[in-house]
Amino acid sequence: MTDHLVLFMPSGKRGRFPTDTPVLEAARQLGVHVESVCGGRGICGRCQVEVQEGVFAKHGITSSNEHISPFGGNEIRYAEKRDLKAGRRLSCTAKVLGDLVVDIPQDTVVNAQVVRKDSDGRVIERNPAVHMCYVEVDEPDMHKPLGDLDRMLVQIKNDWGFSNLQIDAYLYAQVQKILRKGDWKVTAAIHEPFEGGPAILVALYPGLKNEAYGIACDIGSTTIAMHLSSLLSGRTLASAGTSNPQIRFGEDLMSRVSYVMMNPEGREGMTKAVREALNELIGKVCKEGGIERTDILDTVFVGNPIMHHLFLGIDPTELGGAPFALAVSGPVNVRACELDIEVNPGARVYMLPCIAGHVGADAAAATLTEGPHRQDEMMLLVDVGTNAEIVLGNKARTVAASSPTGPAFEGAEISCGQRAAPGAIERVRIDPVTLEPKYRVIGIEPWSDEPGFDEQAKKVGVTGVCGSGIIEIIAEMYLTGIVSEDGVINGELAATNPRIVLSGRTYSYLLKDGEPKLMVSQNDVRAIQLGKAALYAGIKLLMDKLSITTVDNIGLAGAFGSFIDPKYALVLGLVPDCEIAKVKAVGNAAGTGARMALLNRTHRREIEHTVTRIEKIETALESDFQKHFVNAMAFPNKVDAFPRLAQEVQLPVRSVDTDAADGIEPGVARRRGGRRRG
Amino acid sequence: MTDHLVLFMPSGKRGRFPTDTPVLEAARQLGVHVESVCGGRGICGRCQVEVQEGVFAKHGITSSNEHISPFGGNEIRYAEKRDLKAGRRLSCTAKVLGDLVVDIPQDTVVNAQVVRKDSDGRVIERNPAVHMCYVEVDEPDMHKPLGDLDRMLVQIKNDWGFSNLQIDAYLYAQVQKILRKGDWKVTAAIHEPFEGGPAILVALYPGLKNEAYGIACDIGSTTIAMHLSSLLSGRTLASAGTSNPQIRFGEDLMSRVSYVMMNPEGREGMTKAVREALNELIGKVCKEGGIERTDILDTVFVGNPIMHHLFLGIDPTELGGAPFALAVSGPVNVRACELDIEVNPGARVYMLPCIAGHVGADAAAATLTEGPHRQDEMMLLVDVGTNAEIVLGNKARTVAASSPTGPAFEGAEISCGQRAAPGAIERVRIDPVTLEPKYRVIGIEPWSDEPGFDEQAKKVGVTGVCGSGIIEIIAEMYLTGIVSEDGVINGELAATNPRIVLSGRTYSYLLKDGEPKLMVSQNDVRAIQLGKAALYAGIKLLMDKLSITTVDNIGLAGAFGSFIDPKYALVLGLVPDCEIAKVKAVGNAAGTGARMALLNRTHRREIEHTVTRIEKIETALESDFQKHFVNAMAFPNKVDAFPRLAQEVQLPVRSVDTDAADGIEPGVARRRGGRRRG
Repeated sequence: MTDHLVLFMPSGKRGRFPTDTPVLEAARQLGVHVESVCGGRGICGRCQVEVQEGVFAKHGITSSNEHISPFGGNEIRYAEKRDLKAGRRLSCTAKVLGDLVVDIPQDTVVNAQVVRKDSDGRVIERNPAVHMCYVEVDEPDMHKPLGDLDRMLVQIKNDWGFSNLQIDAYLYAQVQKILRKGDWKVTAAIHEPFEGGPAILVALYPGLKNEAYGIACDIGSTTIAMHLSSLLSGRTLASAGTSNPQIRFGEDLMSRVSYVMMNPEGREGMTKAVREALNELIGKVCKEGGIERTDILDTVFVGNPIMHHLFLGIDPTELGGAPFALAVSGPVNVRACELDIEVNPGARVYMLPCIAGHVGADAAAATLTEGPHRQDEMMLLVDVGTNAEIVLGNKARTVAASSPTGPAFEGAEISCGQRAAPGAIERVRIDPVTLEPKYRVIGIEPWSDEPGFDEQAKKVGVTGVCGSGIIEIIAEMYLTGIVSEDGVINGELAATNPRIVLSGRTYSYLLKDGEPKLMVSQNDVRAIQLGKAALYAGIKLLMDKLSITTVDNIGLAGAFGSFIDPKYALVLGLVPDCEIAKVKAVGNAAGTGARMALLNRTHRREIEHTVTRIEKIETALESDFQKHFVNAMAFPNKVDAFPRLAQEVQLPVRSVDTDAADGIEPGVARRRGGRRRG
Repeated sequence: MTDHLVLFMPSGKRGRFPTDTPVLEAARQLGVHVESVCGGRGICGRCQVEVQEGVFAKHGITSSNEHISPFGGNEIRYAEKRDLKAGRRLSCTAKVLGDLVVDIPQDTVVNAQVVRKDSDGRVIERNPAVHMCYVEVDEPDMHKPLGDLDRMLVQIKNDWGFSNLQIDAYLYAQVQKILRKGDWKVTAAIHEPFEGGPAILVALYPGLKNEAYGIACDIGSTTIAMHLSSLLSGRTLASAGTSNPQIRFGEDLMSRVSYVMMNPEGREGMTKAVREALNELIGKVCKEGGIERTDILDTVFVGNPIMHHLFLGIDPTELGGAPFALAVSGPVNVRACELDIEVNPGARVYMLPCIAGHVGADAAAATLTEGPHRQDEMMLLVDVGTNAEIVLGNKARTVAASSPTGPAFEGAEISCGQRAAPGAIERVRIDPVTLEPKYRVIGIEPWSDEPGFDEQAKKVGVTGVCGSGIIEIIAEMYLTGIVSEDGVINGELAATNPRIVLSGRTYSYLLKDGEPKLMVSQNDVRAIQLGKAALYAGIKLLMDKLSITTVDNIGLAGAFGSFIDPKYALVLGLVPDCEIAKVKAVGNAAGTGARMALLNRTHRREIEHTVTRIEKIETALESDFQKHFVNAMAFPNKVDAFPRLAQEVQLPVRSVDTDAADGIEPGVARRRGGRRRG
């Protein structure tokens, strides 16, 4: 038998092939994506693979470089001109001679001068929507008067299998010049949004064009984050962020919707503002990556529903009130130029689907990144903003909701609050005996009680407390008994400790004296209580929906999620009880999800399918929301126990709440003062 | 057996259906196109049919109005509000009860106020690329937070079967308002270029939109002709023409190509000029038809290769020299707005394929109209301009070529020539005895020897001879012996007849004395000889290719073809011998072909397929061209006999050309003077 077993990694796909099958051909037959621009001429170097040496007992394969044709032909010519790492083979040229385990490196660097700089460590298997297809076209022949374009299309069909190509209109006027400039050798950029779907000729280059780029962008209401990636190697060339200029129309989402409702030109102004910011940011990442705007052939954008709609030029007014109707919830595929995005005229825009009226394409992207729908474990994924987007589920079933947490977590509505920026306190510890605080400030390396702090503080300033700092200080106040489980600052302590001070009719905790004086007031605690209660109540409704009482792991997404200490999030009861180690910041999961969709169109199908399966819950319509909300006002919670947290953190002894202990629902409007600690 | 035989006319498709099958459903199952906008709600009235009464023995059907469900339900409601002709039924409502012959009228007039005015008598079976689909959409539901657009797409899929719809980007911003304006009832315009192909949502209207229009346009180098048609009924609402403003850049095609080559802005200027003229013309037909520009959802354009390229914004320079490479020869599908055509923003442009570098989409359209490829008879189709486009063939095989006839047929390069316009002589007869002429002038009803002519001539003027007049006068000069078969004006006649006058070293024929004096010079005869010889030589090459010596019928297309008298075309030998009755002017066959492609997408596939099958011949490359050309310099031809013509017209006795009679090729450069008539 002359067939050999070939296993491709990382996909794990395998099949049997006769002797002398080119490795690239074997991969294609198995549906394993291996990039190739030159179509097997050995000039683009994109189809590199590596043979793994050894016995792979599990697969029944003994793989060896003896089982692949010797290095030669096109490979020698390529290696002479370009850098080909030792052990790397061109799969278009190397042939199967025996059983093989073939590794497809996801970082094939062809233009080696560009420094590798990924936005995170994540390796994304590539299968981009844009293919670069090099072809050599027949010259015109009076006996066969097919048009230049048409002859090229014949060649593309022969060499690459794309038939019935649609043509971007702008190319008609350029095709003859490009063909002649390239001496009848050209590279066609073909956008095929899904395998076997309608394919479109979107750009055309003379000669071999061995690069193509894309951008992935998360349009946050506060911050816009963008990555520039090579569609051919997957490398991230540059990442950059900027603040969303729509802030000048309204700080938070609802104020922007109001602005549109109040101003006839409001929608247009905000659409224009965000697109201009995006174009500037594209300029920035292109400059950093050393490429031209026109080298960008594909783009993916995500955002919450209001950002999503404003970017598309859709009036978001309907999202401002029940029934919170999205204009479009499904995936969006349009030309970038139709949205005034200044990249290649043939570039496309893909937007991930929105999940619901308040759970947007950003939540979908975070879901794609973290993949609760791919897990056996029950995962909770939370992106906290003024509106929290919550996804909960596993392989079997996934649910989603949003909850109006308000702006407290972003430092707004907090007397000492500010945005996360240099000078903001982001970490706080309180001595349980002296009640003296120490803190760490953004832009200052040492803690406030360490040498060098004062010196740097003079330069940077200590100006306020950011969201993660607020969480820590209130959690520390709770852990040290300054604040009760019901959120009341214990005025009795004022008599013995100067940090507790009377402010009007309630007490405050003095975090920092001097200019500015930073105090945590009773109102500040209440604001955090309201925000975290809303968040927890939303989560709880989803848990009810799935009939579960615990979750296995928790991902905290977004800027707030990145900086918050999981321990303190648990102590305050923002999220349900969990092992601290299984609560993780997942960074800009939305941006990563956008990048996944950019580099692999299969991920687009995955999230589109997943979103149709996600069950949506409108928290406002659920009768239990109020009950859960009231219970969640307490630290960490009035009725839900936190046994896994309690194993790692010494929580204050809970007061005996007789009615709750008896299973009687506490009165909704009930407010209790006084200290309950034993 | 409860199945009934139903035959649809005019398609002739038939099938068996159970009792109570709606007639519309039966048609759909057979692939018979019956328009319906409202999807069977009985409100649009588009799906009208008529039952034919009688015994159709050939089909084994006895058809009767007894075999269809009684007039009722939706039909009564519809007939109360709108005009429903006696005998007409709504096929969505009427059900099959027995065997039926069902006629689908191709002129279903729903908005009866518009006068029917077809560009010709031709009835084109309809199957347009645009479907109007009325749907009633669910209102938003917080429990199922699908976007408004997405809910509409679900409904379109359910009611109309279109899935995976692409969305024109501009609609995203409008969908919510339109849905609410229509109280969740809307009509979606869906462009589906071919059955089962990718379908695109191109426009959206609140409520029931029961009309959609399209334009079909032939962009000639001299004249642009446009028709406005209803896509739903097939009616032509308006037709209009205008002169091509590119004339100011160059009278004929090659001078326009030269202009582009000499002027950096030339291409852009000519593209802009023709698009502006088209937009003006669209305004004109819309005004005449009483509709808005934005009601136009589909457009078809044809033109010769240079008009085609300039319209698309393609530099035509390559068409100016060998190898005459078209930028694109295949069908073009783009958005109208991408070509600055001001119609509905979602409207599409379809252009028929070009056949070769000098045989354009206009020739393809004429082919579609006249259908040599559909015939058993061998048909010759000729469109004469400065460059003749020639198609020859039948069902089995079709060939095409172009031939450089020069401008003589358009009246240029003729001393007394002028464009066909009031004052131009278009018909001429010469008395065989006296050699006195009589003629008819455009804009003057009587012949020149009839009462009332002089009076009218004073008003209109007699200013020159147009193309068809030139053909007639030279043919008459030949028939009366003034000109020899070799094209020499017989100077011997000058002695006895004042009409023959010496001009320099050759003789002229005085057609009209006075101001202006109109003479036919020896050079004029030579110019016509050169033009007709080129045309005939091109035709002859195609006949050689098919190994035929006669053709069965001849279509003369274009303006020149419309006015030329077939008899004189044969006498001069412009075209090969044929029965006079089988030589026909086919009018603006290109415009009609464009209208066919507009109203029926199946015709697009037909001509696309046909063009790929047409064998192209480049006359310049054929060694026999010169031989054929020289033989064709004679009237009607040096070697080819015209026996069928000779049966109807008394031709001058041919001189004995010994070498030709012996089958010896005449010398290429040979020029003979003197009169050879016996």
